[in-house]
Amino acid sequence: AELSQGHISVVLLGATGDLAKKYLWQGLFQLYMDQVSSGHSFTFHGAALTALEPGQRLMFDVLKKLACPPDESPNRCAVLKDQFLKLSQYHQLKTAENYTALNREIEVLLRQEGLQEAGRIFYFSVPPFAYTEIARHINSSCRPPPGAWLRVVLEKPFGHDLQSAQQLAAELKSFFREEEMYRVDHYLGKQAVAHILPFRDQNRQFLDPIWNRHHVERVEIVLKETVDAKGRTSFYEQYGVIRDVLQNHLTEALLFLTMELPANVSRAEEVLQCKLQAFRSLRRLEKSSAVLGQYQAYASQVQEELQKPQDYISTTPTFAGVLVHSDNLRWEGVPFLLTSGKALDERVGYVRVLFKNRAYCTQSETLRDAGHSQCKAKQIIFYIGHGVLNTPAVLVSRNLFSPVMPKGSWREAVTRSDLHIFGQPLSDYYVYSPVKERDAYSVLISNIYHGRKDFFITTENLLASWGFWTPLLDSISHHPLRLYPGGVENQHLLDFEMVSGEVEFTLAEPEELLQMPSDYKTIQSKFRQSPLISAWAEGLISQLASDIEKTASRTVAHRGQFHLALSGGSSPVVLFQRLARHHYAFPWKDTHIWLVDERCVPLTDTESNFFSLHNHLLQSVRVPYFNIHPMPVHLNQRLCVEEDRGTELYAKEIMALVANASFDLVLLGMGTDGHTASLFPQSENGLEGTQTVVLTESPVKPHQRMSFSLPLINKARQVFVLVLGKGKHDITTLVSRVGHEPKKWPISGVSPSSGQLVWYVDYEALLG
Amino acid sequence: AELSQGHISVVLLGATGDLAKKYLWQGLFQLYMDQVSSGHSFTFHGAALTALEPGQRLMFDVLKKLACPPDESPNRCAVLKDQFLKLSQYHQLKTAENYTALNREIEVLLRQEGLQEAGRIFYFSVPPFAYTEIARHINSSCRPPPGAWLRVVLEKPFGHDLQSAQQLAAELKSFFREEEMYRVDHYLGKQAVAHILPFRDQNRQFLDPIWNRHHVERVEIVLKETVDAKGRTSFYEQYGVIRDVLQNHLTEALLFLTMELPANVSRAEEVLQCKLQAFRSLRRLEKSSAVLGQYQAYASQVQEELQKPQDYISTTPTFAGVLVHSDNLRWEGVPFLLTSGKALDERVGYVRVLFKNRAYCTQSETLRDAGHSQCKAKQIIFYIGHGVLNTPAVLVSRNLFSPVMPKGSWREAVTRSDLHIFGQPLSDYYVYSPVKERDAYSVLISNIYHGRKDFFITTENLLASWGFWTPLLDSISHHPLRLYPGGVENQHLLDFEMVSGEVEFTLAEPEELLQMPSDYKTIQSKFRQSPLISAWAEGLISQLASDIEKTASRTVAHRGQFHLALSGGSSPVVLFQRLARHHYAFPWKDTHIWLVDERCVPLTDTESNFFSLHNHLLQSVRVPYFNIHPMPVHLNQRLCVEEDRGTELYAKEIMALVANASFDLVLLGMGTDGHTASLFPQSENGLEGTQTVVLTESPVKPHQRMSFSLPLINKARQVFVLVLGKGKHDITTLVSRVGHEPKKWPISGVSPSSGQLVWYVDYEALLG
Repeated sequence: AELSQGHISVVLLGATGDLAKKYLWQGLFQLYMDQVSSGHSFTFHGAALTALEPGQRLMFDVLKKLACPPDESPNRCAVLKDQFLKLSQYHQLKTAENYTALNREIEVLLRQEGLQEAGRIFYFSVPPFAYTEIARHINSSCRPPPGAWLRVVLEKPFGHDLQSAQQLAAELKSFFREEEMYRVDHYLGKQAVAHILPFRDQNRQFLDPIWNRHHVERVEIVLKETVDAKGRTSFYEQYGVIRDVLQNHLTEALLFLTMELPANVSRAEEVLQCKLQAFRSLRRLEKSSAVLGQYQAYASQVQEELQKPQDYISTTPTFAGVLVHSDNLRWEGVPFLLTSGKALDERVGYVRVLFKNRAYCTQSETLRDAGHSQCKAKQIIFYIGHGVLNTPAVLVSRNLFSPVMPKGSWREAVTRSDLHIFGQPLSDYYVYSPVKERDAYSVLISNIYHGRKDFFITTENLLASWGFWTPLLDSISHHPLRLYPGGVENQHLLDFEMVSGEVEFTLAEPEELLQMPSDYKTIQSKFRQSPLISAWAEGLISQLASDIEKTASRTVAHRGQFHLALSGGSSPVVLFQRLARHHYAFPWKDTHIWLVDERCVPLTDTESNFFSLHNHLLQSVRVPYFNIHPMPVHLNQRLCVEEDRGTELYAKEIMALVANASFDLVLLGMGTDGHTASLFPQSENGLEGTQTVVLTESPVKPHQRMSFSLPLINKARQVFVLVLGKGKHDITTLVSRVGHEPKKWPISGVSPSSGQLVWYVDYEALLG
Repeated sequence: AELSQGHISVVLLGATGDLAKKYLWQGLFQLYMDQVSSGHSFTFHGAALTALEPGQRLMFDVLKKLACPPDESPNRCAVLKDQFLKLSQYHQLKTAENYTALNREIEVLLRQEGLQEAGRIFYFSVPPFAYTEIARHINSSCRPPPGAWLRVVLEKPFGHDLQSAQQLAAELKSFFREEEMYRVDHYLGKQAVAHILPFRDQNRQFLDPIWNRHHVERVEIVLKETVDAKGRTSFYEQYGVIRDVLQNHLTEALLFLTMELPANVSRAEEVLQCKLQAFRSLRRLEKSSAVLGQYQAYASQVQEELQKPQDYISTTPTFAGVLVHSDNLRWEGVPFLLTSGKALDERVGYVRVLFKNRAYCTQSETLRDAGHSQCKAKQIIFYIGHGVLNTPAVLVSRNLFSPVMPKGSWREAVTRSDLHIFGQPLSDYYVYSPVKERDAYSVLISNIYHGRKDFFITTENLLASWGFWTPLLDSISHHPLRLYPGGVENQHLLDFEMVSGEVEFTLAEPEELLQMPSDYKTIQSKFRQSPLISAWAEGLISQLASDIEKTASRTVAHRGQFHLALSGGSSPVVLFQRLARHHYAFPWKDTHIWLVDERCVPLTDTESNFFSLHNHLLQSVRVPYFNIHPMPVHLNQRLCVEEDRGTELYAKEIMALVANASFDLVLLGMGTDGHTASLFPQSENGLEGTQTVVLTESPVKPHQRMSFSLPLINKARQVFVLVLGKGKHDITTLVSRVGHEPKKWPISGVSPSSGQLVWYVDYEALLG
């Protein structure tokens, strides 16, 4: 032991549990075999709540069954296994005294053998509710002396939403330093997943020009299982597929793909910073970002295993397809589809990057397929395992590039020529598989030993991930679930597709089909002597958007420009979104955007009407900078001060650009008090006179406003008033009856002198 | 003849030419067969320069060979053919007297038979140089009396660029009214092309949601020929494939696809307006929008047929692939690939619309292919003819929709199940073909008879098309041509692909490969005691762009915001474009854009620095409106008037947002007179003092400028100076030697007090 690097004590908490039996002891044995000549000496301490004698027996039953890996000589393995068993012992760890005793034993052993202590590994293979207490004991009784390290290894679940994860993280933080904690996501130990970053790094020359939205068509990150949750529903019913698979495994793979590459991909801190940056770029998930399913037998399995009544309805999804977007310019618009489920038709995991076909092949198809045409699909696939290949692999289309792979650990695979995968024969790909196929846990245990923190989930990373998933989890708690029979019977039931940034199942359910038609009927009539258009809100908004587009196109055709004045408030937001997403022929380039009214807050304030307009419309269409006219509520670093003459400034701008100050279209709303624009009842300002833009006072905060005056509004060529929702029913009824009384109800003063007024009122506002 | 609708005289000029022999007489005979019972009576007048007797013989040799269509009873056809021959006669039309005589004959005939005149058709099947004279004669001698119409039918070429087309159009206009002219593009008579608009119209319900950039992946418009130009080089050498096929046939198909649908697709005027609108949306073609080729035998064919010397080099392309983009929001970013060539591997024409795959199919592939999965390709193809199908057809993928087709004219085709087309078995499509396959000319002649002007090219349409193609034609006159052997031997030689908005052949030519490396070397050194980075212009710009991005990312990471001040002038334009197209990770959302200097012109003036910045950068990236800070050169409707205090306003804005008025990065240029920003030699303004933003005078127009002062520039954390081009060599050499003399050379005063200065000077500026 003259070359001794010191002693390492490994404590496996939950030594007789399922995970330990299946993977962890084998991983520890592998570590011992790999590192027996490293200069470190080892002891292995299994621990559980079970008393000493039965615990010992249970544990050694497991140890005796440890397997020798095929690449190890049977003799050496037998000798090492014998040593490993001698170096292992069982401890009951229940009380504070138990922990103190364990610590003492380790100290005594070290003293007796004259060993220097290198460090201690505590592997938490226990349910999360036990974490805090064990952590407290380790911290108070089992810390190694100064100079030796402590590594605690934690297994998921790490909370079930952002709040619980934060709480758990805070508790752990009071016992361990960040660098002492190794949170396991065993996907990071899967060889194909672990190789994503090195692959991107080693193939920078090929990937740099194509790893972006101009070249990538879509990315699929998939983990399909054939098994169901039977026997595990007590766990599963609380978590579901998103918490179980998407929040951790698939998200990690997603980030390895989307993050910017740090200069050094093996530096944990650099990787972490890039990952956190990538998290910040992910677009917030909405309810409509996901499709959810549940296999039919799940309900009865839950009823049985959890003793629930017959009519118990579980809302736990066992299948999810989620569409993720990154707002990073590199990835803008590229769909990342994360999919996982139980009781599916096959067991397989993969990350598939499909590139756009940028080529036109002048040769006819028949001739084309002979060679490696640029018109064939181009893909890079990180094949995690199972499926038709039944091995981890990295596949790169031959018409893309011949990848650089580390010679020691990956080799070109001899492939079955008849195999088709992802739409192409296997011979269309370069296929690499690991030289030595290694179980994820044995990879991870080796990385714990080597202190490779980049293979583990830091607290920041974990909370960023929960921060990303929690809004979706909150919003889908009552989301409808598609029931599926399971296995190949699912057929196309779980296929889904993207529709304007959202996902939907491709096959509609019969009920969904029945509801549709009536939603889209619109009725036309009169309201206050002007045309009234009414429908359910959704149909009304479509109608209004397309009427605005028609007006715009006609106006631009006649006069070259379209001056559109928009109101603030919540009703127009849906309209803005509809205009942004569905009106491709809208002549934005020749449209000027004006504000009908504004709150006296900075334009970057979330309360600002302009800010909302910017977020929901202007950011998505191409109105030239010069044609955008926010109200000058913020001059000389202050808000709506009369002597700064913001109203005059805006009035002048209108005079300079809008012929005769006659807007082509003014969009108004109506408040429950009968206000419109920012003209409020019982206030004289802006109801008459020559002033076109005025300062006003709102009864609600923020009180100060800037607004078009009634005379300016009434000069417009067209005025559309949009009224939505039950809350507006009373005022709608009232206004339908009153005359011209703008002081009481400013909306009643809207009456274009030579233009046209149209009311868009939804059924809820009209009929209550 | 009591139901007589009047008499129609058809005059075919060039009655014995190739086109007449091959198509026109047959088309006229078809017209006669179709319309013999319409109430109209007919006479057919063949005309040419040839004298009466030989001309007559030549013409009747053609007429005798007229074929009976398969859907006509042989008896009826024989009778009608006999009548047709009797109603036809030959005329020599050479002199003014000949035309007067023809007119007299028609009048006499009508008088004798007691017929009312309905109209006259003059079909110009003659070379374009003869147009003007014939037109003059017809106008002066052969116009029908008032009440009867005149239709003159013109065949291409209609000019060979915008100018010549305008000239020809102006000449024709002096003889005919627009509604009298029927310009033939025989592609509009191809049944599949003619059905594009009706198809879009009749299938609005299916197409409305998907006929846009969100759903369409690409469009291919293709006409491939196997024949070459042998025997026709005297024509071809002057025109080439773009003028021969792309400017007319493929452009018309393109517009039928991209134009907005008018309410009534059979109203010629509405269709025209929508087409013209679509033309205006097409992005200007650049040299790099096209790849060009020439088949190897072409050169010797030209030498032989045109008696050119052995070393004659033809620059006429016989193959072209052109990438067209529409800036209409509906189509933004969708590639339209127009391809045509001679001596290719197959004869085929088609318009193919390929949709994006929006679906994720949860089922494994093997199970998936059994049904009509949403994951299969989705396409709509207007198959013009020849190729594997050998018939006009409309194909719609079965997973898209079952198309509405007019029952009388199109029927579902019985298809060969073993046929594969566009990557899929034919059984994956709904396939419709015409009930009656009709030759394009017979369709067009029928449309002339019916006065359907929407099947012809109006003057406006023609000039818009030449306006679109002429810049490309001008720019490629010395474009390298890829030589190709012809036929299947071409292999992948003519495959091409899109690379950042441009097209390139996929296979590089050996010479192209050799030039590359040296272009990208950069050297690093010192210049005026500061770091100097030098390279060829292209490499230098890439380096500069990526250095700016690095600075931006680092700054945002540390301080949350990045304040970037940019200069005007021409050098930065390439930089702006590079930043817009290649820097996906640039933190635009957190970047503030400022102007270093500005010309005193409105921001919308093309001279404005901001205007250029807007066009080349801001339009393509997502900088929030609030973070864009143009200089206030335009206040109170006037430019840079001192009392409007624009400089103070900008200075205040800087103080409010930029900590310590210390910009994170200022980008400067250098003028040949040593000026930088808008600080000019021999002027004191802005060289020292406390004023941060100043008004200055430029020696060149526009004289008035607003500019950062030297003290403000020197407060920056980083200053990059970009100097490009041979023209800057002298000043670069001079400035490398002088000391701090800002009055003589303002650039010499750039010396950040605590920031870093880096010079980016290209080899041409540095080495001359």
